[in-house]
Amino acid sequence: MDEKNGQVEESSKACSDGSVCGYDSLHHLLSANLKPHLFQEVNRILLGLNCGKALETISVPESAKALSSEHDFDLQAFCFHADKELLREPRIVRVGLIQNSIAVPTTAHFLDQKRAIFGKLKPIIDAAAVSGVNILCLQEAWTMPFAFCTREKRWCEFAEPVDGESTQFLQDLARKHNMVIISPILERDVNHGETLWNTAVIIGNHGNIIGKHRKNHIPRVGDFNESTYYMEGNTGHPVFETAYGKIAVNICYGRHHPLNSLAFGLNGAEIVFNPSATVGELSEPMWPIEARNAAIANSYFVGSINRVGTEVFPNPFTSGDGKPQHADFGHFYGSSYFSSPDASCTPSLSRHRDGLLISDMDLNLCRQIKDKWGFRMTARYELYGDLLDRYLKPDFEPQVISDPMLHKKTA
Amino acid sequence: MDEKNGQVEESSKACSDGSVCGYDSLHHLLSANLKPHLFQEVNRILLGLNCGKALETISVPESAKALSSEHDFDLQAFCFHADKELLREPRIVRVGLIQNSIAVPTTAHFLDQKRAIFGKLKPIIDAAAVSGVNILCLQEAWTMPFAFCTREKRWCEFAEPVDGESTQFLQDLARKHNMVIISPILERDVNHGETLWNTAVIIGNHGNIIGKHRKNHIPRVGDFNESTYYMEGNTGHPVFETAYGKIAVNICYGRHHPLNSLAFGLNGAEIVFNPSATVGELSEPMWPIEARNAAIANSYFVGSINRVGTEVFPNPFTSGDGKPQHADFGHFYGSSYFSSPDASCTPSLSRHRDGLLISDMDLNLCRQIKDKWGFRMTARYELYGDLLDRYLKPDFEPQVISDPMLHKKTA
Repeated sequence: MDEKNGQVEESSKACSDGSVCGYDSLHHLLSANLKPHLFQEVNRILLGLNCGKALETISVPESAKALSSEHDFDLQAFCFHADKELLREPRIVRVGLIQNSIAVPTTAHFLDQKRAIFGKLKPIIDAAAVSGVNILCLQEAWTMPFAFCTREKRWCEFAEPVDGESTQFLQDLARKHNMVIISPILERDVNHGETLWNTAVIIGNHGNIIGKHRKNHIPRVGDFNESTYYMEGNTGHPVFETAYGKIAVNICYGRHHPLNSLAFGLNGAEIVFNPSATVGELSEPMWPIEARNAAIANSYFVGSINRVGTEVFPNPFTSGDGKPQHADFGHFYGSSYFSSPDASCTPSLSRHRDGLLISDMDLNLCRQIKDKWGFRMTARYELYGDLLDRYLKPDFEPQVISDPMLHKKTA
Repeated sequence: MDEKNGQVEESSKACSDGSVCGYDSLHHLLSANLKPHLFQEVNRILLGLNCGKALETISVPESAKALSSEHDFDLQAFCFHADKELLREPRIVRVGLIQNSIAVPTTAHFLDQKRAIFGKLKPIIDAAAVSGVNILCLQEAWTMPFAFCTREKRWCEFAEPVDGESTQFLQDLARKHNMVIISPILERDVNHGETLWNTAVIIGNHGNIIGKHRKNHIPRVGDFNESTYYMEGNTGHPVFETAYGKIAVNICYGRHHPLNSLAFGLNGAEIVFNPSATVGELSEPMWPIEARNAAIANSYFVGSINRVGTEVFPNPFTSGDGKPQHADFGHFYGSSYFSSPDASCTPSLSRHRDGLLISDMDLNLCRQIKDKWGFRMTARYELYGDLLDRYLKPDFEPQVISDPMLHKKTA
């Protein structure tokens, strides 16, 4: 739980992903290399700890720490506060995010790969449980390597129905631990002709399946050839009312679409999870920005998860960039973190290690921020409904006012 | 232009705004206190300098530097690159942002206050001109103190028609310097019964008025009592086609509304300016987030401007927070900066000093990023047009899926 300042090496060696090796996260790098009062000022801006707010950690039980040592995963726990209200009790929930690398090489038998990931996740989920986590989210397509870069259809074998093996595995744990679990998988929709979807299954704290959400926006960028495998989701923007609050899931590339974030907000989400798989060269500078903006603009909490490590595939592939064929997708940089509607955020988990990030959050903060900033009430949605209606017409003409001198010049 | 590393004091004294005194910007604090290879890694994430990109400065003429020394304003200049294209020439424009404090106390005669600001801005605009700036944006309500905290109506005297004194002052400079100038003022609309607006006037490089945009979203938060003075704008989301590119203006609080940012994008903006006036205690943790997110999500450049310094008013006022009356609005923290659609950004100007920030930007980058990331094509606007249409109805019912166990429990 502590900063582990002494453990940050000041190596200047470049890692394979172009970053400097030997540091665990931006937060650790800065805490190890800045004097405390300067680190505090940097945190005021970077973590949004304004008005003298301190970064508050919460203690987790020794048994959780023991699991994190034994199974070598990062374990950090923080706390977001809300003001006390006179007419409502606090609604504090403890939320967990898990990031992980795959467990065995992609050359292993598919069944072994899946079972090995189950085995790897079990102690991390147990650590969440003994820490009292109420809602836990796993990473995107957690049962498999992120094989969509290959464009090989054999990886479709990892797809499962919503009530398949991985869901059953988690249902047992959800029931046992009285925990809501969000399970993002590659879904096989048998009732619709074996259609594949990128889906999050929402498992209630009694082990029941509350529902599912299918990824709304599918990337076509870099090695993210996901449009080869599945189509845009058809489940809208559902908010799931669970025992611990109203939650929604914005899967991966959906975080680049502020409208997607908005829609979960309009439907009343208090926590939006963003299970992702993304690599450093492509998206790392966006990672600390988009989730925080979604939390600010929509007055809800965001939990962002990215997988960890470099996955090497059996057959090399090209990346549409003119470079030679290669067999890996680049470095999944982890860095899972929470964002708050008050513009603050937690430090990120490691860029390199598996991890469990826990945060307490008082969901009352969502309404408090709405009352304070009034973004919903000042949003003028009618302007934008009208604009989108016009924009969707093929003959849409943008509102452009040209400098008449410009046309005089070119005439 | 250089980093001025040696000038960053490591004071632990707390400033009146709660921050640590004695440093000029986050960038300067980090550059002065981190070893170079660590600073580079921090910049990779904070400034979005991925894939080995370096932070590139451009040189400005000695005459500009002389003006910045003589008139004591921060002067920094950077450069955003785009790939070379085979079928289009680069479209590099040089863009400038000015941030400044007021020039004389708010107790001075209004005419003296206005004239003093004109006099203060003249050498900064001249520095932009000799540096070859093509498009220059001033800060929100630049002709006056940001007096809306007071709720006193006498400050309305600062309002001017679109073709008023301040516009005429800038028209001369625009013509002389062949520069597009964006002039955010408090507008008095005489033709509509002396209506006031928060307006940006767009002055073409021939000194002509191209048009105006009126602030779309009006805050009701903290001391931002702007809704006491003017209403939500009625000019839509115009994009102005100038000699140097398609630009738009998202005035101040509009940056909290992703839909507002989206609308300028849908209308084809390549650069969106965000002239602002905002104080540290309220918004500083949001400042590095929202503009960058708008640039990423909408594939355009953003130029963010905030005024500088603490403005003290003649009569004390309360702030709706139960605290004693006081006569100042808090610290306007400057920190103006540019964001690029590729997720990179420049360092910010000073938190304390007047400043001119210049950046070259190849506008071809906007389309290149659209082609790469495909956010427009994957946006599914029809989903959101439909959602907004439904949301706008008073009987809108959010899409909520409740855990049936939950209702069993409470039944």
